[in-house]
Amino acid sequence: MPHRRVRRPRPGAVPGAIVAAGTGRTRVQVVSYGPDSFHDVTAASADDCASFLGGHGVVWLDVLDAPDAGTLETLGRLLHLHPLAVADAANVPQRPKHEAYDGFDFLVLRLVRLGPPGTPLDSEQLSIFWGAGWVLTIGEHPSDALNPIRERLRTGSSELRARGADFLAYALLDVVVDNYFPVVESIGDRLEELETRVLGRPDRELLVSIHRLRRELASLRRAVWPLREALSQLVRDGSGRFSPATVPFLRDCYDHAVQIIDLLETYRDHSASLLELHLSAVDLRTNEVMKVLTLIATVFLPLTFITGLYGMNFTPSSPWNLPELRLRYGYPLVLLVMAAIAGAMMLFFRRKGWLGGRSDPVGIEPSPDEKDSPD
Amino acid sequence: MPHRRVRRPRPGAVPGAIVAAGTGRTRVQVVSYGPDSFHDVTAASADDCASFLGGHGVVWLDVLDAPDAGTLETLGRLLHLHPLAVADAANVPQRPKHEAYDGFDFLVLRLVRLGPPGTPLDSEQLSIFWGAGWVLTIGEHPSDALNPIRERLRTGSSELRARGADFLAYALLDVVVDNYFPVVESIGDRLEELETRVLGRPDRELLVSIHRLRRELASLRRAVWPLREALSQLVRDGSGRFSPATVPFLRDCYDHAVQIIDLLETYRDHSASLLELHLSAVDLRTNEVMKVLTLIATVFLPLTFITGLYGMNFTPSSPWNLPELRLRYGYPLVLLVMAAIAGAMMLFFRRKGWLGGRSDPVGIEPSPDEKDSPD
Amino acid sequence: MPHRRVRRPRPGAVPGAIVAAGTGRTRVQVVSYGPDSFHDVTAASADDCASFLGGHGVVWLDVLDAPDAGTLETLGRLLHLHPLAVADAANVPQRPKHEAYDGFDFLVLRLVRLGPPGTPLDSEQLSIFWGAGWVLTIGEHPSDALNPIRERLRTGSSELRARGADFLAYALLDVVVDNYFPVVESIGDRLEELETRVLGRPDRELLVSIHRLRRELASLRRAVWPLREALSQLVRDGSGRFSPATVPFLRDCYDHAVQIIDLLETYRDHSASLLELHLSAVDLRTNEVMKVLTLIATVFLPLTFITGLYGMNFTPSSPWNLPELRLRYGYPLVLLVMAAIAGAMMLFFRRKGWLGGRSDPVGIEPSPDEKDSPD
Amino acid sequence: MPHRRVRRPRPGAVPGAIVAAGTGRTRVQVVSYGPDSFHDVTAASADDCASFLGGHGVVWLDVLDAPDAGTLETLGRLLHLHPLAVADAANVPQRPKHEAYDGFDFLVLRLVRLGPPGTPLDSEQLSIFWGAGWVLTIGEHPSDALNPIRERLRTGSSELRARGADFLAYALLDVVVDNYFPVVESIGDRLEELETRVLGRPDRELLVSIHRLRRELASLRRAVWPLREALSQLVRDGSGRFSPATVPFLRDCYDHAVQIIDLLETYRDHSASLLELHLSAVDLRTNEVMKVLTLIATVFLPLTFITGLYGMNFTPSSPWNLPELRLRYGYPLVLLVMAAIAGAMMLFFRRKGWLGGRSDPVGIEPSPDEKDSPD
Amino acid sequence: MPHRRVRRPRPGAVPGAIVAAGTGRTRVQVVSYGPDSFHDVTAASADDCASFLGGHGVVWLDVLDAPDAGTLETLGRLLHLHPLAVADAANVPQRPKHEAYDGFDFLVLRLVRLGPPGTPLDSEQLSIFWGAGWVLTIGEHPSDALNPIRERLRTGSSELRARGADFLAYALLDVVVDNYFPVVESIGDRLEELETRVLGRPDRELLVSIHRLRRELASLRRAVWPLREALSQLVRDGSGRFSPATVPFLRDCYDHAVQIIDLLETYRDHSASLLELHLSAVDLRTNEVMKVLTLIATVFLPLTFITGLYGMNFTPSSPWNLPELRLRYGYPLVLLVMAAIAGAMMLFFRRKGWLGGRSDPVGIEPSPDEKDSPD
Repeated sequence: MPHRRVRRPRPGAVPGAIVAAGTGRTRVQVVSYGPDSFHDVTAASADDCASFLGGHGVVWLDVLDAPDAGTLETLGRLLHLHPLAVADAANVPQRPKHEAYDGFDFLVLRLVRLGPPGTPLDSEQLSIFWGAGWVLTIGEHPSDALNPIRERLRTGSSELRARGADFLAYALLDVVVDNYFPVVESIGDRLEELETRVLGRPDRELLVSIHRLRRELASLRRAVWPLREALSQLVRDGSGRFSPATVPFLRDCYDHAVQIIDLLETYRDHSASLLELHLSAVDLRTNEVMKVLTLIATVFLPLTFITGLYGMNFTPSSPWNLPELRLRYGYPLVLLVMAAIAGAMMLFFRRKGWLGGRSDPVGIEPSPDEKDSPD
Repeated sequence: MPHRRVRRPRPGAVPGAIVAAGTGRTRVQVVSYGPDSFHDVTAASADDCASFLGGHGVVWLDVLDAPDAGTLETLGRLLHLHPLAVADAANVPQRPKHEAYDGFDFLVLRLVRLGPPGTPLDSEQLSIFWGAGWVLTIGEHPSDALNPIRERLRTGSSELRARGADFLAYALLDVVVDNYFPVVESIGDRLEELETRVLGRPDRELLVSIHRLRRELASLRRAVWPLREALSQLVRDGSGRFSPATVPFLRDCYDHAVQIIDLLETYRDHSASLLELHLSAVDLRTNEVMKVLTLIATVFLPLTFITGLYGMNFTPSSPWNLPELRLRYGYPLVLLVMAAIAGAMMLFFRRKGWLGGRSDPVGIEPSPDEKDSPD
Repeated sequence: MPHRRVRRPRPGAVPGAIVAAGTGRTRVQVVSYGPDSFHDVTAASADDCASFLGGHGVVWLDVLDAPDAGTLETLGRLLHLHPLAVADAANVPQRPKHEAYDGFDFLVLRLVRLGPPGTPLDSEQLSIFWGAGWVLTIGEHPSDALNPIRERLRTGSSELRARGADFLAYALLDVVVDNYFPVVESIGDRLEELETRVLGRPDRELLVSIHRLRRELASLRRAVWPLREALSQLVRDGSGRFSPATVPFLRDCYDHAVQIIDLLETYRDHSASLLELHLSAVDLRTNEVMKVLTLIATVFLPLTFITGLYGMNFTPSSPWNLPELRLRYGYPLVLLVMAAIAGAMMLFFRRKGWLGGRSDPVGIEPSPDEKDSPD
Repeated sequence: MPHRRVRRPRPGAVPGAIVAAGTGRTRVQVVSYGPDSFHDVTAASADDCASFLGGHGVVWLDVLDAPDAGTLETLGRLLHLHPLAVADAANVPQRPKHEAYDGFDFLVLRLVRLGPPGTPLDSEQLSIFWGAGWVLTIGEHPSDALNPIRERLRTGSSELRARGADFLAYALLDVVVDNYFPVVESIGDRLEELETRVLGRPDRELLVSIHRLRRELASLRRAVWPLREALSQLVRDGSGRFSPATVPFLRDCYDHAVQIIDLLETYRDHSASLLELHLSAVDLRTNEVMKVLTLIATVFLPLTFITGLYGMNFTPSSPWNLPELRLRYGYPLVLLVMAAIAGAMMLFFRRKGWLGGRSDPVGIEPSPDEKDSPD
Repeated sequence: MPHRRVRRPRPGAVPGAIVAAGTGRTRVQVVSYGPDSFHDVTAASADDCASFLGGHGVVWLDVLDAPDAGTLETLGRLLHLHPLAVADAANVPQRPKHEAYDGFDFLVLRLVRLGPPGTPLDSEQLSIFWGAGWVLTIGEHPSDALNPIRERLRTGSSELRARGADFLAYALLDVVVDNYFPVVESIGDRLEELETRVLGRPDRELLVSIHRLRRELASLRRAVWPLREALSQLVRDGSGRFSPATVPFLRDCYDHAVQIIDLLETYRDHSASLLELHLSAVDLRTNEVMKVLTLIATVFLPLTFITGLYGMNFTPSSPWNLPELRLRYGYPLVLLVMAAIAGAMMLFFRRKGWLGGRSDPVGIEPSPDEKDSPD
């Protein structure tokens, strides 16, 4: 998931310059509707849209392809958009935000969709402009995320048809916000799975998996926080820009954004604590292994010393030199002594609690045993 | 404690769509009371509730079972509830919050109860709606948490009977908030126990226990913080929605929420510091064990070297080859030399303070001994 | 220092229910004074206090013992206190706070006193109610903390006598706040001592000592922060509730609280940094010890290998088998070779900077020596 | 990247004292323009600028060289600047800020430019003063950063020509802000590269590289945060100081600053997580290496003990002394026993999961195998 | 740098009680000046100051010695100061703050001066009172920090002479603030030096040095933050208390405080990152050393085992017992085998990347080599 560059003109360029990705063939889907009417046409170019504007109902212009500079300028001219706002729809990615201009409102949103398992998040910018009687949406590439809205418009019973352009803008916003839920929940599922692995038999890749998940969480947070901020402001100042009946819906949408942030924060805390737990567990386990191995080594060292002792070649002619070697039961005796030493050491280690296991006394307060034992 | 999914319609659905868990047989307990009257009836369905509304006293509708969509729609129609609010009562879990609608108030609360020891927290959403002369409560499954209120209503002497629907709403809220205390205190008790184990003889599961306790604390915090926020706003704006005499009670309730958060924060700090202490203690102890074992090994190495030395098979025909082997007191001498070496090493380690124990000089400023000793 | 439980009624109880600890024999000290008068009487019960109220001067009712429910109800009735406020004085511990009721003010404070060295902090709740012409103080057990105020009242020259009940309330508040200073300073002294031990010859208990001190700091912070908050609000809104001449005194008191918090924060930072320093120092030292021991072991390993080599029992009949053993100066030569190996290794380690000491090159940039040396 | 000192007079000096770096030969480029005119002159000294002021169009005075005290005083006198503002333009570096004086505005900005690869950031202070009909820019050394603006002024079609001095000030500010983008993006690229190295084959310098990158991020943050603050205030209060048509452009500029901060915060989080990942990975790997080596050592210790055992020189005259040595198949038997011991140990280690590899069970919950195995 | 105790009366004392350090011989320097006059007299006691007050110009009373209670009371009476303010000037240290009283203003400042290299910071409280036509300054001990102001007053050309007492108060404040710069910069220099040592050849004291520097930074922060707060409030509310022409100067002073805090925060971040880097570097290096030593040990273990093998005393009478010992080229063969084992191990370690050096693959993703190699 490499950092994504902002598409923007070089420093010093005229403000509002457009650095568009489009190829010039930009189709626009025009949906015009009222309480009793619904028309759905795909215009081959922005110029064809002019005739649909200015009627009685609401017109929704949905730019289907990555827009080119010409299309954007045409649309800007038709709908009297400010060049800076148009440039923000082209020079992606922008931060999610809401801007109020004279005659129109402008929302920048980040639309996330869950890709096939294993692939990174699919994320594109969705820019929504709306004014009296029209809504304009500009994405980055063709997408089916807005189809449910189109379907609800098509079916006559929908409340959507009866309300104005601001309610359509709300409905689009609501779809974008609700699309975060499956994404966030899939992260929650992966987190559960990671926790199971940390508590069970974690392998070396766990560290990288947690790191990746944390980066995805961070990028989601960066998308949702400004969205929440913009929504909070819309709810507060909404009465002028939205019809009063729309405001509770907007508040509901804001609530969803807060809930998503709540989940993201929970997952972030959880992932941090998981990472910590993982590292501590690996550490504890390695320490334990090292301790056991060192204990084994420590038991064998005096024994090996003794074997070395009786492997020395002192001349047996002197009665002072290694008389043990000449004893009848020398060897069995030495074996006994060595067994006794090994046993005493094991006993000492067990009393010290160094042998690990359930009752491993890694406490700080010295245990009674320790106080007695000489150092 | 797996993360719990929000029950919600798919993105793009009509706002206010209900995804209810109920099975269709939803009983509603209807309590209607006034200063001098008290009636308690269990209605088999929501439609039977209509006849109780519109009288002089207060009517409390308590949905006893998990509500189905039909029941919720009927209740919404009877009490003129906003569909978005009704949907929030069905599509659980929602974040705790207060919302003021025209004609009614809506509170989402999280009701926690202490389960049997060893089981996870029992937690459900309680939605409280209230308006002029009525209160509606919707939980997730049958529960006895609200019984004390019903009892207080039944006994005529209660202040509760003399006041309006807003006071009943407060009383229900108060029960929910006070139910956090035993839960939080049980966490405090477990924390005390964990501290005793960390300072005593901690075992390997301690890490997981602390991790689990921290996750429970986090989930409680996420439930109480928005509750506190909602209460704070209710206290500030309460004068319009509550009778003036109720406001001090609301403030008392807010106080309890603040006290719970205070406890949760204290426990969170405590658990973090405990985790840190545990890891440090385990680390210190392992380091100490390793140090002692390494010291033992270091003492035996030169001794084993000497035994190897005199185990070499140089031909004794040359007087230069291992003349010590031919000494009369060679073996006792070597034993003495080895004892001297071991003693000197022990002395050196003791002066360096490497032998552990009480006066273990792990300080940073080099001790006077060290300055003298050659490296 | 186990967490202390709030004494509170079970969830669902009538709000304002009292869970008092008193035994029923609750004495009340009644001090009534004016610019020219001073009376000091100990009433055996709350009912005896009624006759003192309603005069010209100020009456201070100081409940000497842990109050029982009856006494609290009598006092509440006499002084027209709100039942929720009275309950907060009984159901301790409450968070420090200020609440303004009609006709009286209510302050909850935490009074800390330094116990004998080695004992934990002595801490009790002090509840102060005051209205026109009266002050009521309720503690948790008999205490001499308020005696200086009584003394200042007794001596006629005191400014305290000339002012009203609000100034007495301020004076009591001031005593409580100033009692934090010796406590905080004793913590500062212990911190100094801990720092000396960390920089000197720290032992194993240091970790627990720092942990305990940090917990005490945390509990003090939790007591002073809400107090500071309450004082800040009193200073801001004080003009209505306090006579204008009292406000600068209140601001002075607020200043003291801020100063105490400042000290607590400083000590908290200091203790965190001390803990870090301690752990790092222990780590560094252990690492150093292990390194030295491992170096010793590494020097002896090749030497022991050589002794093993010449301890092999290859038949001397073949001239190819261990001809060194048959050399005239074989043994001295081998000794020389071993000395050379040990010397070379020591030199290598010294050049690598692995022998510790002042100029220990633990740096990251490879030293020139390292660049030359083969790995 | 050493910390840079503020050039400032000694404490106690007259406020507004200038500590300039200039050498006295300070050229000023004078650009005067209107909708239909454009003149570009390089004045050899500040005194020559007087004649250009007071005309109909806008005059932009761009101090080309590091300014000396005399030039600054002359300019201050000509344009009626406050001495404190002039001093801030000379005594660099100052914090980015906006200050409104009577008759003029003052902006301190930090202009960063990407140097050649490998060199540190090129950063200088740019001070912008503007009033009715004039703009004054003062840098630290000659730079081509403002050339694009001069070019846009020169070409008559530019919107810049048609607007007033406040729009020129905005355009200069915009260039400075947009120059952060390439710098921030180059840091993003280095971060990507560092991540690749951490996940691949990191070497020892990685630690220093991450540390350096983090310091650069910190210094960029310190430059952009106050800039963002100043811009936010300009947008809020801008209506008085900027023409209404300029305000949306200012908001766009503020948006860019927020976007830069967003990127910087993302990179900061990313770098912190990378550092953590790096240290954990190095730790895990070292632990693994040490574990494998210790396992090898542990396998050989009992074997070496056995060889020592049969290397002892007990007199063979006693049948109890090392009878194994006299067996016909003694040696092959011992070899078999040693192979069996080594095999059993390897098996034990594998069952314990200590041999590393993919399925390394460093989990916390004891595995079933462990429960069976004796300690 | 032990924590410094507040000099304050015991809890319960009369508010405004003075705990002064003075010895009773307190000289006061009286400077009275106007646009055309300047007088400088040293009064032996506070009582002598009365005659200078009430004239046309400005009188600056500078208490030269540590003040005693009598002097403070006299000055308080002469200038109508509030006893609480006077007590704050005596009972040092107080937190930096500004307090507005009727008829005078009161500033508490912390004056830091750089002592000789190696000595701790010299820090004293400076209390500034000012009212109509007078300024009173009280320090803790005689100091020359305010001399530059006196000099500027003495020289007639100074703007200081032409302005009122509020400008003198500003000038004193400005000196105090500007005295932080050299102190902060010296800390920056030490930080640079520490960084050089961390990246080079850090020694054991580095840890303590960084700890000390961090404590000094913390104590500076605690002095400057409240100062900044007080200044911010003065700038906001200054219009009433300062003449309008003084406000820009005050804002400049506030700017300096912000710049100092900015530097302190930068240094704090830097020192934290340095500490982290130091510990990581030490850790990495120790790990590397241990790894190399363990590798050496691991290479020698099998070799020593082989020498032990052929040192066994199996009877040569059986042809099955150690036939290798009887080979003609047994010894050279064994040497070859041992060399081959050592070489193979080295090769294995090198392929595994365990031999350290530049290309040390401590990465997480297993390298291709590892995948092939058996564990």
